[in-house]
Amino acid sequence: MKRVAIIGLGLMGGSLALALRQAGAAVHIVGCGRAELLRRALEKGVIDSGFVDAGEAAAECDLVVLCTPVETSIKLLAQIAPRLKAGALVSDVGSTKAAFAAAARKIFGTSAAERVLPGHPLAGREVSGLENASAELFAGCVWVLTPLGVAEDPLSRSGKGRLNVAPDSLQRELREALEAIGARIVFCTPEEHDRTLAYTSHLPQMVSTALALTLERAFGAGNPALQVHAGGLRTMLRLAGSEPAMWEQIAASNQQNLAAALEALEAELRGLRESLGSAEFRTSFEQAREFAKLLKK
Amino acid sequence: MKRVAIIGLGLMGGSLALALRQAGAAVHIVGCGRAELLRRALEKGVIDSGFVDAGEAAAECDLVVLCTPVETSIKLLAQIAPRLKAGALVSDVGSTKAAFAAAARKIFGTSAAERVLPGHPLAGREVSGLENASAELFAGCVWVLTPLGVAEDPLSRSGKGRLNVAPDSLQRELREALEAIGARIVFCTPEEHDRTLAYTSHLPQMVSTALALTLERAFGAGNPALQVHAGGLRTMLRLAGSEPAMWEQIAASNQQNLAAALEALEAELRGLRESLGSAEFRTSFEQAREFAKLLKK
Repeated sequence: MKRVAIIGLGLMGGSLALALRQAGAAVHIVGCGRAELLRRALEKGVIDSGFVDAGEAAAECDLVVLCTPVETSIKLLAQIAPRLKAGALVSDVGSTKAAFAAAARKIFGTSAAERVLPGHPLAGREVSGLENASAELFAGCVWVLTPLGVAEDPLSRSGKGRLNVAPDSLQRELREALEAIGARIVFCTPEEHDRTLAYTSHLPQMVSTALALTLERAFGAGNPALQVHAGGLRTMLRLAGSEPAMWEQIAASNQQNLAAALEALEAELRGLRESLGSAEFRTSFEQAREFAKLLKK
Repeated sequence: MKRVAIIGLGLMGGSLALALRQAGAAVHIVGCGRAELLRRALEKGVIDSGFVDAGEAAAECDLVVLCTPVETSIKLLAQIAPRLKAGALVSDVGSTKAAFAAAARKIFGTSAAERVLPGHPLAGREVSGLENASAELFAGCVWVLTPLGVAEDPLSRSGKGRLNVAPDSLQRELREALEAIGARIVFCTPEEHDRTLAYTSHLPQMVSTALALTLERAFGAGNPALQVHAGGLRTMLRLAGSEPAMWEQIAASNQQNLAAALEALEAELRGLRESLGSAEFRTSFEQAREFAKLLKK
Protein backbone atom coordinates (compact mmCIF):
# COMPACT_ATOMS: atom_id res chain seq x y z
CA MET A 1 0.00 0.00 0.00
CA LYS A 2 1.40 3.33 -1.04
CA ARG A 3 -0.36 5.79 1.24
CA VAL A 4 -2.05 4.84 4.52
CA ALA A 5 -3.98 7.22 6.80
CA ILE A 6 -4.13 6.54 10.52
CA ILE A 7 -6.97 8.58 12.04
CA GLY A 8 -6.35 8.92 15.78
CA LEU A 9 -2.85 8.63 17.21
CA GLY A 10 -3.41 7.05 20.62
CA LEU A 11 -2.04 3.69 21.76
CA MET A 12 -3.75 1.82 18.90
CA GLY A 13 -3.16 4.27 16.07
CA GLY A 14 0.39 5.03 17.12
CA SER A 15 1.24 1.36 17.46
CA LEU A 16 -0.33 0.52 14.10
CA ALA A 17 1.67 3.26 12.37
CA LEU A 18 4.90 2.06 13.98
CA ALA A 19 4.15 -1.59 13.18
CA LEU A 20 3.21 -0.96 9.52
CA ARG A 21 6.36 1.06 9.06
CA GLN A 22 8.56 -1.56 10.70
CA ALA A 23 7.02 -4.27 8.49
CA GLY A 24 7.53 -2.13 5.37
CA ALA A 25 3.80 -2.38 4.62
CA ALA A 26 3.25 1.32 3.81
CA VAL A 27 5.27 3.78 1.75
CA HIS A 28 3.81 6.93 3.30
CA ILE A 29 1.87 7.20 6.57
CA VAL A 30 -0.48 10.13 7.08
CA GLY A 31 -1.57 10.86 10.64
CA CYS A 32 -4.63 12.66 11.95
CA GLY A 33 -5.06 14.11 15.43
CA ARG A 34 -4.76 17.31 17.44
CA ALA A 35 -1.94 19.63 16.32
CA GLU A 36 0.19 18.93 19.38
CA LEU A 37 -0.17 15.17 18.87
CA LEU A 38 0.79 15.49 15.19
CA ARG A 39 3.89 17.42 16.18
CA ARG A 40 4.98 14.67 18.57
CA ALA A 41 4.15 11.89 16.07
CA LEU A 42 6.18 13.64 13.35
CA GLU A 43 9.09 14.19 15.73
CA LYS A 44 9.14 10.54 16.70
CA GLY A 45 8.93 9.44 13.09
CA VAL A 46 5.61 7.67 13.70
CA ILE A 47 4.02 9.43 10.69
CA ASP A 48 5.31 11.10 7.53
CA SER A 49 2.73 13.87 7.32
CA GLY A 50 -0.20 15.00 9.44
CA PHE A 51 -3.59 16.73 9.24
CA VAL A 52 -5.92 17.93 11.96
CA ASP A 53 -8.88 17.32 9.63
CA ALA A 54 -9.79 13.67 9.03
CA GLY A 55 -11.13 14.31 5.51
CA GLU A 56 -7.87 15.94 4.44
CA ALA A 57 -5.85 13.10 5.96
CA ALA A 58 -7.96 10.46 4.22
CA ALA A 59 -7.88 12.07 0.77
CA GLU A 60 -5.52 10.33 -1.71
CA CYS A 61 -4.91 7.38 0.64
CA ASP A 62 -5.23 3.71 -0.38
CA LEU A 63 -6.14 2.63 3.13
CA VAL A 64 -7.70 4.65 5.95
CA VAL A 65 -7.77 3.12 9.45
CA LEU A 66 -9.97 4.79 12.05
CA CYS A 67 -8.21 4.37 15.40
CA THR A 68 -10.64 6.29 17.60
CA PRO A 69 -13.34 5.13 20.06
CA VAL A 70 -16.39 3.52 18.43
CA GLU A 71 -18.75 6.51 18.46
CA THR A 72 -16.06 8.85 17.18
CA SER A 73 -15.17 6.44 14.37
CA ILE A 74 -18.82 6.34 13.27
CA LYS A 75 -18.90 10.14 13.03
CA LEU A 76 -15.58 10.28 11.22
CA LEU A 77 -16.64 7.61 8.72
CA ALA A 78 -19.45 9.88 7.47
CA GLN A 79 -17.02 12.80 7.41
CA ILE A 80 -14.27 11.11 5.35
CA ALA A 81 -16.60 9.17 2.97
CA PRO A 82 -16.94 11.96 0.35
CA ARG A 83 -13.19 12.62 0.43
CA LEU A 84 -12.02 9.04 -0.26
CA LYS A 85 -10.38 8.35 -3.61
CA ALA A 86 -11.88 5.67 -5.87
CA GLY A 87 -11.00 2.16 -4.69
CA ALA A 88 -9.76 3.27 -1.26
CA LEU A 89 -10.47 0.90 1.64
CA VAL A 90 -11.54 1.94 5.14
CA SER A 91 -10.96 -0.13 8.27
CA ASP A 92 -11.12 0.57 11.99
CA VAL A 93 -10.00 -0.89 15.31
CA GLY A 94 -13.16 -0.33 17.38
CA SER A 95 -14.05 -2.61 20.28
CA THR A 96 -17.58 -3.26 19.01
CA LYS A 97 -18.50 -3.83 15.39
CA ALA A 98 -22.28 -3.96 14.77
CA ALA A 99 -22.92 -0.21 15.19
CA PHE A 100 -19.92 0.69 13.00
CA ALA A 101 -20.98 -1.88 10.39
CA ALA A 102 -24.52 -0.47 10.33
CA ALA A 103 -23.14 3.04 9.81
CA ALA A 104 -20.91 1.79 6.97
CA ARG A 105 -23.87 0.08 5.28
CA LYS A 106 -25.91 3.27 5.56
CA ILE A 107 -23.15 5.52 4.24
CA PHE A 108 -21.83 3.31 1.43
CA GLY A 109 -24.99 1.39 0.49
CA THR A 110 -24.41 -1.57 -1.82
CA SER A 111 -20.69 -0.88 -2.11
CA ALA A 112 -20.17 -1.02 1.68
CA ALA A 113 -18.68 -4.53 1.59
CA GLU A 114 -15.97 -3.41 -0.90
CA ARG A 115 -15.22 -0.05 0.67
CA VAL A 116 -15.21 -0.90 4.38
CA LEU A 117 -13.64 -3.88 6.16
CA PRO A 118 -14.17 -3.32 9.91
CA GLY A 119 -11.59 -4.75 12.28
CA HIS A 120 -10.76 -5.21 15.94
CA PRO A 121 -7.30 -6.10 17.24
CA LEU A 122 -7.59 -7.77 20.65
CA ALA A 123 -4.56 -6.04 22.01
CA GLY A 124 -5.89 -3.90 24.82
CA ARG A 125 -3.65 -2.50 27.49
CA GLU A 126 -4.34 -0.61 30.71
CA VAL A 127 -2.08 2.16 29.45
CA SER A 128 -3.07 4.50 26.64
CA GLY A 129 -1.68 7.31 24.53
CA LEU A 130 0.97 7.75 21.85
CA GLU A 131 3.74 7.68 24.47
CA ASN A 132 2.92 4.00 25.13
CA ALA A 133 2.65 3.05 21.45
CA SER A 134 4.81 0.14 20.33
CA ALA A 135 5.47 -1.60 17.02
CA GLU A 136 5.17 -4.89 18.95
CA LEU A 137 1.66 -4.28 20.34
CA PHE A 138 -0.02 -6.59 17.82
CA ALA A 139 2.56 -9.40 17.82
CA GLY A 140 0.64 -12.61 18.45
CA CYS A 141 -2.73 -10.91 18.95
CA VAL A 142 -6.04 -11.96 17.42
CA TRP A 143 -7.24 -9.38 14.87
CA VAL A 144 -10.90 -9.87 14.05
CA LEU A 145 -12.11 -8.75 10.62
CA THR A 146 -15.86 -8.53 10.07
CA PRO A 147 -16.67 -8.42 6.33
CA LEU A 148 -19.94 -6.63 5.65
CA GLY A 149 -21.12 -8.88 2.82
CA VAL A 150 -21.61 -11.98 4.95
CA ALA A 151 -24.90 -12.72 6.63
CA GLU A 152 -24.28 -15.97 8.51
CA ASP A 153 -21.86 -16.58 11.35
CA PRO A 154 -18.72 -18.04 9.78
CA LEU A 155 -17.02 -18.56 13.14
CA SER A 156 -19.66 -20.88 14.58
CA ARG A 157 -20.37 -22.54 11.26
CA SER A 158 -16.90 -23.34 9.99
CA GLY A 159 -15.57 -24.47 13.32
CA LYS A 160 -12.32 -22.82 12.35
CA GLY A 161 -12.95 -19.13 12.45
CA ARG A 162 -11.94 -18.80 8.78
CA LEU A 163 -14.13 -17.43 6.05
CA ASN A 164 -13.79 -18.16 2.35
CA VAL A 165 -14.36 -14.74 0.95
CA ALA A 166 -12.60 -13.67 -2.21
CA PRO A 167 -11.52 -10.18 -1.22
CA ASP A 168 -10.40 -7.65 -3.74
CA SER A 169 -6.69 -7.01 -3.90
CA LEU A 170 -6.62 -4.15 -1.38
CA GLN A 171 -8.51 -6.22 1.19
CA ARG A 172 -5.95 -8.96 0.61
CA GLU A 173 -3.14 -6.43 1.01
CA LEU A 174 -4.64 -5.27 4.33
CA ARG A 175 -4.79 -8.87 5.55
CA GLU A 176 -1.21 -9.50 4.52
CA ALA A 177 -0.08 -6.30 6.23
CA LEU A 178 -1.82 -7.30 9.47
CA GLU A 179 -0.20 -10.73 9.31
CA ALA A 180 3.14 -9.07 8.67
CA ILE A 181 2.83 -7.09 11.92
CA GLY A 182 2.21 -10.34 13.81
CA ALA A 183 -1.60 -10.45 14.05
CA ARG A 184 -3.59 -13.67 13.73
CA ILE A 185 -6.66 -12.92 11.60
CA VAL A 186 -10.07 -14.35 12.51
CA PHE A 187 -13.22 -13.63 10.50
CA CYS A 188 -16.74 -13.31 11.79
CA THR A 189 -19.81 -11.18 11.23
CA PRO A 190 -20.09 -7.86 13.10
CA GLU A 191 -23.05 -9.21 15.07
CA GLU A 192 -21.27 -12.42 16.05
CA HIS A 193 -18.24 -10.36 17.09
CA ASP A 194 -20.30 -8.27 19.48
CA ARG A 195 -22.14 -11.25 20.97
CA THR A 196 -18.83 -13.04 21.57
CA LEU A 197 -16.91 -10.06 22.92
CA ALA A 198 -19.71 -9.25 25.35
CA TYR A 199 -18.65 -12.46 27.14
CA THR A 200 -14.94 -12.73 26.42
CA SER A 201 -13.95 -9.08 26.89
CA HIS A 202 -16.69 -6.77 28.15
CA LEU A 203 -17.91 -9.11 30.89
CA PRO A 204 -14.42 -9.64 32.42
CA GLN A 205 -14.07 -5.85 32.51
CA MET A 206 -17.45 -5.39 34.24
CA VAL A 207 -16.57 -8.07 36.79
CA SER A 208 -13.32 -6.37 37.73
CA THR A 209 -15.06 -3.01 38.04
CA ALA A 210 -17.92 -4.48 40.10
CA LEU A 211 -15.42 -6.21 42.39
CA ALA A 212 -13.67 -2.89 43.04
CA LEU A 213 -17.00 -1.20 43.79
CA THR A 214 -17.97 -4.02 46.17
CA LEU A 215 -14.73 -3.73 48.13
CA GLU A 216 -14.94 0.02 48.29
CA ARG A 217 -18.47 -0.12 49.62
CA ALA A 218 -17.55 -2.82 52.18
CA PHE A 219 -14.37 -1.17 53.51
CA GLY A 220 -13.89 2.37 52.23
CA ALA A 221 -10.74 3.10 50.26
CA GLY A 222 -8.29 3.78 53.09
CA ASN A 223 -9.29 0.95 55.45
CA PRO A 224 -6.21 -0.83 56.89
CA ALA A 225 -8.07 -4.15 56.67
CA LEU A 226 -7.48 -3.94 52.91
CA GLN A 227 -3.80 -4.72 53.44
CA VAL A 228 -4.96 -8.25 54.26
CA HIS A 229 -5.13 -9.47 50.69
CA ALA A 230 -3.06 -11.68 48.42
CA GLY A 231 -1.97 -11.36 44.80
CA GLY A 232 -5.27 -12.82 43.60
CA LEU A 233 -7.15 -9.64 44.45
CA ARG A 234 -4.68 -7.40 42.64
CA THR A 235 -4.94 -9.68 39.60
CA MET A 236 -8.72 -9.48 39.62
CA LEU A 237 -8.68 -5.67 39.98
CA ARG A 238 -6.17 -5.05 37.17
CA LEU A 239 -8.85 -4.42 34.54
CA ALA A 240 -10.71 -2.05 36.86
CA GLY A 241 -7.88 0.39 36.14
CA SER A 242 -8.99 0.75 32.49
CA GLU A 243 -10.10 3.99 30.86
CA PRO A 244 -13.74 4.86 31.83
CA ALA A 245 -14.37 6.97 28.70
CA MET A 246 -13.47 4.07 26.41
CA TRP A 247 -15.63 1.62 28.33
CA GLU A 248 -18.55 4.00 28.39
CA GLN A 249 -18.57 3.89 24.58
CA ILE A 250 -18.04 0.13 24.37
CA ALA A 251 -20.88 -0.57 26.81
CA ALA A 252 -23.20 1.90 25.10
CA SER A 253 -22.59 0.33 21.69
CA ASN A 254 -23.11 -3.25 22.92
CA GLN A 255 -25.82 -2.79 25.54
CA GLN A 256 -28.09 -5.68 24.71
CA ASN A 257 -25.39 -8.35 24.48
CA LEU A 258 -23.63 -7.05 27.57
CA ALA A 259 -26.83 -6.96 29.61
CA ALA A 260 -27.46 -10.61 28.69
CA ALA A 261 -23.91 -11.58 29.66
CA LEU A 262 -24.20 -9.73 32.98
CA GLU A 263 -27.49 -11.43 33.78
CA ALA A 264 -25.92 -14.81 33.03
CA LEU A 265 -23.02 -14.06 35.38
CA GLU A 266 -25.33 -12.83 38.12
CA ALA A 267 -27.19 -16.15 37.86
CA GLU A 268 -23.93 -18.12 38.21
CA LEU A 269 -22.91 -16.11 41.28
CA ARG A 270 -26.33 -16.65 42.83
CA GLY A 271 -25.97 -20.36 42.05
CA LEU A 272 -22.58 -20.54 43.78
CA ARG A 273 -23.96 -18.61 46.77
CA GLU A 274 -26.95 -20.94 47.13
CA SER A 275 -24.72 -24.02 46.84
CA LEU A 276 -22.29 -22.96 49.61
CA GLY A 277 -21.72 -26.00 51.82
CA SER A 278 -23.36 -28.45 49.39
CA ALA A 279 -21.86 -31.04 47.03
CA GLU A 280 -22.95 -28.97 44.02
CA PHE A 281 -20.42 -26.29 45.00
CA ARG A 282 -17.50 -28.68 44.49
CA THR A 283 -18.92 -29.84 41.15
CA SER A 284 -19.17 -26.22 39.93
CA PHE A 285 -15.58 -25.55 40.96
CA GLU A 286 -14.36 -28.62 39.10
CA GLN A 287 -16.30 -27.66 35.99
CA ALA A 288 -14.91 -24.11 36.08
CA ARG A 289 -11.36 -25.42 36.51
CA GLU A 290 -11.66 -27.71 33.49
CA PHE A 291 -12.90 -24.81 31.40
CA ALA A 292 -10.13 -22.48 32.56
CA LYS A 293 -7.53 -25.13 31.74
CA LEU A 294 -8.89 -25.65 28.23
CA LEU A 295 -8.79 -21.93 27.49
CA LYS A 296 -5.16 -21.72 28.58
CA LYS A 297 -4.10 -24.19 25.90
CA MET B 1 13.09 -22.84 68.59
CA LYS B 2 14.73 -26.18 69.10
CA ARG B 3 12.20 -28.59 67.66
CA VAL B 4 9.42 -27.62 65.23
CA ALA B 5 6.74 -29.98 63.86
CA ILE B 6 5.20 -29.27 60.45
CA ILE B 7 1.97 -31.24 60.12
CA GLY B 8 1.14 -31.60 56.43
CA LEU B 9 3.86 -31.36 53.77
CA GLY B 10 2.11 -29.77 50.81
CA LEU B 11 3.01 -26.44 49.22
CA MET B 12 2.52 -24.54 52.50
CA GLY B 13 4.08 -27.01 54.93
CA GLY B 14 6.97 -27.86 52.63
CA SER B 15 7.70 -24.17 51.96
CA LEU B 16 7.51 -23.32 55.66
CA ALA B 17 9.96 -26.11 56.54
CA LEU B 18 12.37 -24.97 53.83
CA ALA B 19 12.06 -21.31 54.82
CA LEU B 20 12.53 -21.93 58.57
CA ARG B 21 15.60 -24.01 57.86
CA GLN B 22 17.07 -21.43 55.49
CA ALA B 23 16.52 -18.69 58.10
CA GLY B 24 18.12 -20.86 60.79
CA ALA B 25 14.96 -20.52 62.89
CA ALA B 26 14.67 -24.20 63.89
CA VAL B 27 17.27 -26.71 65.08
CA HIS B 28 15.28 -29.83 64.19
CA ILE B 29 12.25 -30.06 61.89
CA VAL B 30 9.82 -32.95 62.31
CA GLY B 31 7.46 -33.65 59.42
CA CYS B 32 4.11 -35.38 59.37
CA GLY B 33 2.37 -36.84 56.30
CA ARG B 34 1.84 -40.03 54.37
CA ALA B 35 4.84 -42.41 54.37
CA GLU B 36 5.69 -41.75 50.72
CA LEU B 37 5.61 -37.98 51.29
CA LEU B 38 7.86 -38.32 54.36
CA ARG B 39 10.33 -40.31 52.31
CA ARG B 40 10.52 -37.59 49.65
CA ALA B 41 10.72 -34.79 52.25
CA LEU B 42 13.57 -36.59 54.04
CA GLU B 43 15.39 -37.20 50.76
CA LYS B 44 15.14 -33.53 49.79
CA GLY B 45 16.32 -32.43 53.21
CA VAL B 46 13.04 -30.59 53.88
CA ILE B 47 12.64 -32.33 57.27
CA ASP B 48 14.99 -34.03 59.73
CA SER B 49 12.62 -36.74 60.90
CA GLY B 50 9.10 -37.82 60.06
CA PHE B 51 6.00 -39.47 61.51
CA VAL B 52 2.79 -40.61 59.88
CA ASP B 53 0.94 -39.95 63.14
CA ALA B 54 0.39 -36.27 64.00
CA GLY B 55 0.44 -36.90 67.77
CA GLU B 56 3.84 -38.58 67.57
CA ALA B 57 5.20 -35.81 65.37
CA ALA B 58 3.94 -33.12 67.77
CA ALA B 59 5.28 -34.72 70.95
CA GLU B 60 8.42 -33.04 72.34
CA CYS B 61 8.16 -30.11 69.92
CA ASP B 62 8.33 -26.44 70.97
CA LEU B 63 6.19 -25.33 68.04
CA VAL B 64 3.65 -27.31 66.03
CA VAL B 65 2.31 -25.78 62.80
CA LEU B 66 -0.73 -27.40 61.23
CA CYS B 67 -0.35 -27.00 57.45
CA THR B 68 -3.46 -28.85 56.33
CA PRO B 69 -6.86 -27.64 55.04
CA VAL B 70 -9.06 -25.98 57.68
CA GLU B 71 -11.32 -28.90 58.55
CA THR B 72 -8.39 -31.31 58.76
CA SER B 73 -6.47 -28.93 61.01
CA ILE B 74 -9.43 -28.74 63.40
CA LYS B 75 -9.50 -32.54 63.68
CA LEU B 76 -5.73 -32.75 64.12
CA LEU B 77 -5.74 -30.07 66.81
CA ALA B 78 -7.92 -32.28 69.03
CA GLN B 79 -5.69 -35.24 68.23
CA ILE B 80 -2.36 -33.62 69.08
CA ALA B 81 -3.58 -31.64 72.14
CA PRO B 82 -2.98 -34.42 74.72
CA ARG B 83 0.49 -35.14 73.27
CA LEU B 84 1.87 -31.60 73.44
CA LYS B 85 4.67 -30.95 75.90
CA ALA B 86 4.16 -28.27 78.56
CA GLY B 87 4.63 -24.77 77.11
CA ALA B 88 4.47 -25.89 73.48
CA LEU B 89 2.77 -23.51 71.03
CA VAL B 90 0.45 -24.53 68.20
CA SER B 91 -0.16 -22.47 65.06
CA ASP B 92 -1.71 -23.15 61.66
CA VAL B 93 -1.88 -21.70 58.15
CA GLY B 94 -5.60 -22.19 57.43
CA SER B 95 -7.45 -19.89 55.06
CA THR B 96 -10.25 -19.18 57.54
CA LYS B 97 -9.73 -18.59 61.25
CA ALA B 98 -13.00 -18.38 63.23
CA ALA B 99 -13.82 -22.11 63.10
CA PHE B 100 -10.24 -23.08 64.02
CA ALA B 101 -10.20 -20.50 66.83
CA ALA B 102 -13.49 -21.83 68.21
CA ALA B 103 -12.09 -25.36 68.19
CA ALA B 104 -8.93 -24.17 70.00
CA ARG B 105 -11.01 -22.40 72.67
CA LYS B 106 -13.06 -25.54 73.19
CA ILE B 107 -10.06 -27.86 73.40
CA PHE B 108 -7.75 -25.69 75.51
CA GLY B 109 -10.28 -23.70 77.53
CA THR B 110 -8.82 -20.76 79.46
CA SER B 111 -5.27 -21.54 78.32
CA ALA B 112 -6.20 -21.41 74.60
CA ALA B 113 -4.72 -17.93 74.12
CA GLU B 114 -1.31 -19.10 75.42
CA ARG B 115 -1.26 -22.48 73.70
CA VAL B 116 -2.62 -21.61 70.25
CA LEU B 117 -1.78 -18.66 67.99
CA PRO B 118 -3.67 -19.20 64.72
CA GLY B 119 -2.12 -17.81 61.54
CA HIS B 120 -2.72 -17.37 57.83
CA PRO B 121 0.01 -16.54 55.31
CA LEU B 122 -1.52 -14.86 52.24
CA ALA B 123 0.76 -16.65 49.87
CA GLY B 124 -1.57 -18.77 47.78
CA ARG B 125 -0.53 -20.22 44.46
CA GLU B 126 -2.41 -22.08 41.75
CA VAL B 127 0.10 -24.90 42.09
CA SER B 128 0.20 -27.22 45.07
CA GLY B 129 2.23 -30.08 46.54
CA LEU B 130 5.69 -30.57 48.04
CA GLU B 131 7.26 -30.54 44.57
CA ASN B 132 6.34 -26.86 44.24
CA ALA B 133 7.47 -25.90 47.74
CA SER B 134 9.95 -23.04 47.95
CA ALA B 135 11.84 -21.31 50.77
CA GLU B 136 10.89 -18.02 49.07
CA LEU B 137 7.11 -18.53 49.10
CA PHE B 138 6.56 -16.21 52.05
CA ALA B 139 9.00 -13.45 51.07
CA GLY B 140 7.04 -10.20 51.20
CA CYS B 141 3.69 -11.83 51.98
CA VAL B 142 1.22 -10.71 54.64
CA TRP B 143 1.02 -13.28 57.47
CA VAL B 144 -2.06 -12.71 59.60
CA LEU B 145 -1.92 -13.81 63.25
CA THR B 146 -5.20 -13.96 65.15
CA PRO B 147 -4.55 -14.05 68.92
CA LEU B 148 -7.35 -15.78 70.81
CA GLY B 149 -7.33 -13.52 73.85
CA VAL B 150 -8.50 -10.40 72.07
CA ALA B 151 -12.19 -9.61 71.75
CA GLU B 152 -12.24 -6.37 69.75
CA ASP B 153 -11.07 -5.84 66.19
CA PRO B 154 -7.54 -4.44 66.46
CA LEU B 155 -7.21 -3.92 62.71
CA SER B 156 -10.16 -1.56 62.38
CA ARG B 157 -9.53 0.11 65.72
CA SER B 158 -5.84 0.84 65.60
CA GLY B 159 -5.83 1.92 61.99
CA LYS B 160 -2.45 0.26 61.71
CA GLY B 161 -3.13 -3.43 61.86
CA ARG B 162 -0.84 -3.78 64.87
CA LEU B 163 -1.87 -5.12 68.21
CA ASN B 164 -0.16 -4.39 71.48
CA VAL B 165 -0.24 -7.79 73.04
CA ALA B 166 2.56 -8.93 75.30
CA PRO B 167 3.10 -12.42 73.98
CA ASP B 168 5.01 -15.00 75.93
CA SER B 169 8.50 -15.72 74.72
CA LEU B 170 7.57 -18.57 72.36
CA GLN B 171 4.91 -16.45 70.68
CA ARG B 172 7.55 -13.76 70.23
CA GLU B 173 9.94 -16.35 68.83
CA LEU B 174 7.30 -17.46 66.31
CA ARG B 175 6.77 -13.87 65.22
CA GLU B 176 10.47 -13.31 64.83
CA ALA B 177 10.83 -16.52 62.82
CA LEU B 178 8.03 -15.48 60.47
CA GLU B 179 9.64 -12.09 59.98
CA ALA B 180 12.95 -13.83 59.35
CA ILE B 181 11.41 -15.77 56.45
CA GLY B 182 10.18 -12.51 54.91
CA ALA B 183 6.57 -12.32 56.11
CA ARG B 184 4.91 -9.07 57.14
CA ILE B 185 2.85 -9.73 60.28
CA VAL B 186 -0.64 -8.26 60.69
CA PHE B 187 -2.80 -8.92 63.75
CA CYS B 188 -6.56 -9.16 63.86
CA THR B 189 -9.24 -11.24 65.56
CA PRO B 190 -10.25 -14.55 63.94
CA GLU B 191 -13.72 -13.13 63.21
CA GLU B 192 -12.38 -9.95 61.62
CA HIS B 193 -9.99 -12.06 59.53
CA ASP B 194 -12.83 -14.11 58.09
CA ARG B 195 -15.04 -11.10 57.37
CA THR B 196 -12.17 -9.36 55.59
CA LEU B 197 -10.94 -12.38 53.64
CA ALA B 198 -14.48 -13.11 52.42
CA TYR B 199 -14.10 -9.93 50.36
CA THR B 200 -10.37 -9.74 49.64
CA SER B 201 -9.71 -13.40 48.84
CA HIS B 202 -12.77 -15.65 48.72
CA LEU B 203 -14.90 -13.28 46.62
CA PRO B 204 -12.23 -12.81 43.88
CA GLN B 205 -12.00 -16.61 43.69
CA MET B 206 -15.79 -16.99 43.35
CA VAL B 207 -15.88 -14.31 40.66
CA SER B 208 -13.25 -16.08 38.58
CA THR B 209 -15.06 -19.40 38.96
CA ALA B 210 -18.46 -17.87 38.11
CA LEU B 211 -16.96 -16.18 35.04
CA ALA B 212 -15.65 -19.54 33.79
CA LEU B 213 -19.05 -21.14 34.36
CA THR B 214 -20.80 -18.30 32.51
CA LEU B 215 -18.54 -18.65 29.48
CA GLU B 216 -18.86 -22.39 29.41
CA ARG B 217 -22.64 -22.17 29.50
CA ALA B 218 -22.68 -19.48 26.78
CA PHE B 219 -20.27 -21.19 24.36
CA GLY B 220 -19.42 -24.75 25.37
CA ALA B 221 -15.79 -25.57 26.02
CA GLY B 222 -14.59 -26.30 22.47
CA ASN B 223 -16.33 -23.42 20.66
CA PRO B 224 -13.98 -21.70 18.16
CA ALA B 225 -15.56 -18.34 19.05
CA LEU B 226 -13.59 -18.57 22.31
CA GLN B 227 -10.36 -17.87 20.43
CA VAL B 228 -11.68 -14.32 20.11
CA HIS B 229 -10.49 -13.11 23.47
CA ALA B 230 -7.66 -10.96 24.79
CA GLY B 231 -5.30 -11.30 27.74
CA GLY B 232 -7.86 -9.79 30.09
CA LEU B 233 -10.00 -12.92 30.02
CA ARG B 234 -7.08 -15.22 30.78
CA THR B 235 -6.13 -12.95 33.68
CA MET B 236 -9.65 -13.07 35.09
CA LEU B 237 -9.81 -16.88 34.75
CA ARG B 238 -6.44 -17.56 36.42
CA LEU B 239 -7.95 -18.14 39.86
CA ALA B 240 -10.61 -20.46 38.42
CA GLY B 241 -7.77 -22.97 38.03
CA SER B 242 -7.43 -23.31 41.83
CA GLU B 243 -7.90 -26.53 43.77
CA PRO B 244 -11.66 -27.32 44.24
CA ALA B 245 -11.12 -29.42 47.39
CA MET B 246 -9.38 -26.56 49.16
CA TRP B 247 -12.04 -24.05 48.18
CA GLU B 248 -14.82 -26.37 49.24
CA GLN B 249 -13.39 -26.28 52.78
CA ILE B 250 -12.76 -22.54 52.76
CA ALA B 251 -16.27 -21.77 51.55
CA ALA B 252 -17.85 -24.19 54.02
CA SER B 253 -15.96 -22.65 56.95
CA ASN B 254 -16.84 -19.05 55.99
CA GLN B 255 -20.34 -19.46 54.57
CA GLN B 256 -22.08 -16.51 56.18
CA ASN B 257 -19.44 -13.91 55.37
CA LEU B 258 -18.99 -15.23 51.86
CA ALA B 259 -22.72 -15.24 51.16
CA ALA B 260 -22.90 -11.58 52.25
CA ALA B 261 -19.94 -10.67 50.01
CA LEU B 262 -21.49 -12.50 47.04
CA GLU B 263 -24.80 -10.73 47.53
CA ALA B 264 -23.00 -7.38 47.62
CA LEU B 265 -21.21 -8.17 44.36
CA GLU B 266 -24.40 -9.36 42.69
CA ALA B 267 -25.95 -6.00 43.62
CA GLU B 268 -23.03 -4.09 42.05
CA LEU B 269 -23.28 -6.12 38.84
CA ARG B 270 -27.02 -5.49 38.69
CA GLY B 271 -26.32 -1.78 39.26
CA LEU B 272 -23.82 -1.68 36.39
CA ARG B 273 -26.26 -3.55 34.15
CA GLU B 274 -29.10 -1.18 34.92
CA SER B 275 -26.86 1.85 34.34
CA LEU B 276 -25.67 0.75 30.87
CA GLY B 277 -25.91 3.78 28.60
CA SER B 278 -26.47 6.26 31.45
CA ALA B 279 -24.13 8.80 33.06
CA GLU B 280 -24.08 6.74 36.27
CA PHE B 281 -22.14 4.02 34.42
CA ARG B 282 -19.21 6.34 33.79
CA THR B 283 -19.23 7.50 37.43
CA SER B 284 -19.09 3.90 38.65
CA PHE B 285 -16.16 3.16 36.35
CA GLU B 286 -14.27 6.18 37.61
CA GLN B 287 -14.92 5.25 41.22
CA ALA B 288 -13.74 1.68 40.63
CA ARG B 289 -10.60 2.90 38.89
CA GLU B 290 -9.69 5.19 41.77
CA PHE B 291 -10.10 2.31 44.21
CA ALA B 292 -8.02 -0.08 42.10
CA LYS B 293 -5.25 2.52 41.88
CA LEU B 294 -5.18 3.06 45.64
CA LEU B 295 -4.89 -0.67 46.28
CA LYS B 296 -1.92 -0.96 43.92
CA LYS B 297 0.11 1.48 46.01
